[in-house]
Amino acid sequence: MERVAVIGSSMTQFGQRDEWVLELLSEAGLACLDDAGVGAADVDHLYVSNMASGEFEGQTGIMNALAQDIDATPAYTQRVDQTSSSGGAGIYAAWQSVASGASEMTLLVGGEKMTHRTTGEATDVIASLTHPVEYKHGVTLPSFAGLTARHYLDRFDAPRESLGKVAVKNHKNGVDNPHAQFRKEVDLETVLESPIVADPLRLYDFCPITDGSAALLLCPESVAQEYTDEYAVITGIDGATDTHVVHEREDPTVMGGVVESGEGAYEMSGREPDDIDVAELHDMFTILEFLQMEGLGFAEQGEAWELVEEGETERDGELPINTSGGLKSKGHPLGASGVAQGVEIYEQLVGEAGARQVEADVGLCCNVGGFGNCVITTIMEAAQ
Amino acid sequence: MERVAVIGSSMTQFGQRDEWVLELLSEAGLACLDDAGVGAADVDHLYVSNMASGEFEGQTGIMNALAQDIDATPAYTQRVDQTSSSGGAGIYAAWQSVASGASEMTLLVGGEKMTHRTTGEATDVIASLTHPVEYKHGVTLPSFAGLTARHYLDRFDAPRESLGKVAVKNHKNGVDNPHAQFRKEVDLETVLESPIVADPLRLYDFCPITDGSAALLLCPESVAQEYTDEYAVITGIDGATDTHVVHEREDPTVMGGVVESGEGAYEMSGREPDDIDVAELHDMFTILEFLQMEGLGFAEQGEAWELVEEGETERDGELPINTSGGLKSKGHPLGASGVAQGVEIYEQLVGEAGARQVEADVGLCCNVGGFGNCVITTIMEAAQ
Repeated sequence: MERVAVIGSSMTQFGQRDEWVLELLSEAGLACLDDAGVGAADVDHLYVSNMASGEFEGQTGIMNALAQDIDATPAYTQRVDQTSSSGGAGIYAAWQSVASGASEMTLLVGGEKMTHRTTGEATDVIASLTHPVEYKHGVTLPSFAGLTARHYLDRFDAPRESLGKVAVKNHKNGVDNPHAQFRKEVDLETVLESPIVADPLRLYDFCPITDGSAALLLCPESVAQEYTDEYAVITGIDGATDTHVVHEREDPTVMGGVVESGEGAYEMSGREPDDIDVAELHDMFTILEFLQMEGLGFAEQGEAWELVEEGETERDGELPINTSGGLKSKGHPLGASGVAQGVEIYEQLVGEAGARQVEADVGLCCNVGGFGNCVITTIMEAAQ
Repeated sequence: MERVAVIGSSMTQFGQRDEWVLELLSEAGLACLDDAGVGAADVDHLYVSNMASGEFEGQTGIMNALAQDIDATPAYTQRVDQTSSSGGAGIYAAWQSVASGASEMTLLVGGEKMTHRTTGEATDVIASLTHPVEYKHGVTLPSFAGLTARHYLDRFDAPRESLGKVAVKNHKNGVDNPHAQFRKEVDLETVLESPIVADPLRLYDFCPITDGSAALLLCPESVAQEYTDEYAVITGIDGATDTHVVHEREDPTVMGGVVESGEGAYEMSGREPDDIDVAELHDMFTILEFLQMEGLGFAEQGEAWELVEEGETERDGELPINTSGGLKSKGHPLGASGVAQGVEIYEQLVGEAGARQVEADVGLCCNVGGFGNCVITTIMEAAQ
């Protein structure tokens, strides 16, 4: 089977935007086509990763609206929802559309418009993705994060500061991302003294609520070569669920979906953790960066915090993680986030990451839905 | 590339149900696995076709909940939304998952729970799938249907009765479908004297609001043969959009998405309209059955009504259409409908259609999103 290539990328400014989701999707979609030099008329399939435009805006059918808005009609459209991992699921859907032969040119656009709603309203929508026995009793995603962080720190004798250093690192990276919501460094003291949200986690351990959109363009490798020599190839991709009821998991520090999807992506690509040069992990909460580092084999269980303490995940470290600034500083417009992870890895691989550029031939991104309820891991490589 | 087979099917009772959507999805999903003799642990990918569980129930993430509920964890999950054609889009997604090699066993479950909301509330959610310039000015899907029906009858000199006969036929077929919402015949007089909804269309020209779920199980043909000799193969499938703003279309009697997706499915399968032995069309409104018959090449433009008048689309006619009872009598739980179309065609091809059984080796289903905003056409054949 022919390999699936990525030949274009884009993301809008993330943050508080005045535009509605359709305008954000159009902005990213058109910029992505422009980046690749591909016309909208050449798009066969158009996937929109979006969790909740109906709940947030009272507007559905946005994938069909987008097709007309960017002049891609009669392209086939579909909305991909996998809650907070809708973007990663979009990469998987787009990959399948090309790998199956159904499409020779697939545009994936992820986006969400959230900041016009109050934090309470947004939290209500997000909480509805978890099991009713949990959220109706007040156990939301942040509270899971707090419980898990406390357990992790106690069990593995990890210092509270190590979690704070994830936030410090990702904010530092975000300064060099022109599209990030927060382009400002924060020091460890600021993180550790910010207001408590879910003990022991504080405000700076959490990603913000964000508007934004991101896009990727996928096609068979032979088609990619008609447009460019500078492209990337998706060599491994897989997704997996864990229990939907979080408290039924055997070990709260192991996200089964991370482990399973990672193993699938490694096997498919023939790669192993040591081969990964750069990674984007789903740092919705700082503790999640530890759990993914361990679940993906970058560190032994209970030891991810040591790598962070040693600076190995910094931009100049052994394995740079979240060079984009991560969800922490870049922002987390639900449906866009997984696509934006792919955008960062793609841009690192083709040398378009600007001030954030690291040396990388093989990259990985891991997009987490809910509290690991479903996870998608993608391995991308620079074309040889 | 290996062909993609369908080896199991199920649908719940359609109608007014007391269960929530997750319970309906579980009922259909488990029955489908049981029908095929496949264990939940063997499911690699699980797709849920659903338009609006968030809007209707305040519950999202239902694909992850379903994975746990039917014991399919760690299967990969994704929710497929293509508005009222979410079911057809689910068939396409499931087909792609198998054809791409990503999955060796894909369970597709479509479902919607709607009847707990008032007709006004349900209509508001459905209207949000159309372009805001339309629905915010009161041009909803039923009003498009009325306008189109009036135009069609005038332009092609078709009798009003011919539309009524679509309703009569589909109700007659529905009597033999144990899962249909309305198992009762209606006579032409009843249809023609029912209350006006969108002139010239009356109550009996419209499908009802419905709760229900339907499921299909897909796998590579070589895997199918490990389980059964009685299976079907998807030989053609394609989807396409038309303008999202309906009034921008050149000819209101031509749904571009029907034509484009039909051509794609015919080309892929090597079939032509004459080869089709049985078809399920999206009769959300009676006029749509005419438009699809013409768009798919079963009749010349403006002549579909003649075939209906001549009885050629009856169960004992040349091309039986909507042997299931169609959306008209079976009901239209948005995300389930396209899957249920596939269920009927599959059951006709493998000889499991009971009292509705016709002779068929090749079947087609056409699932229409919005007012033709996106359409998916699938051609299925009995395994040779």
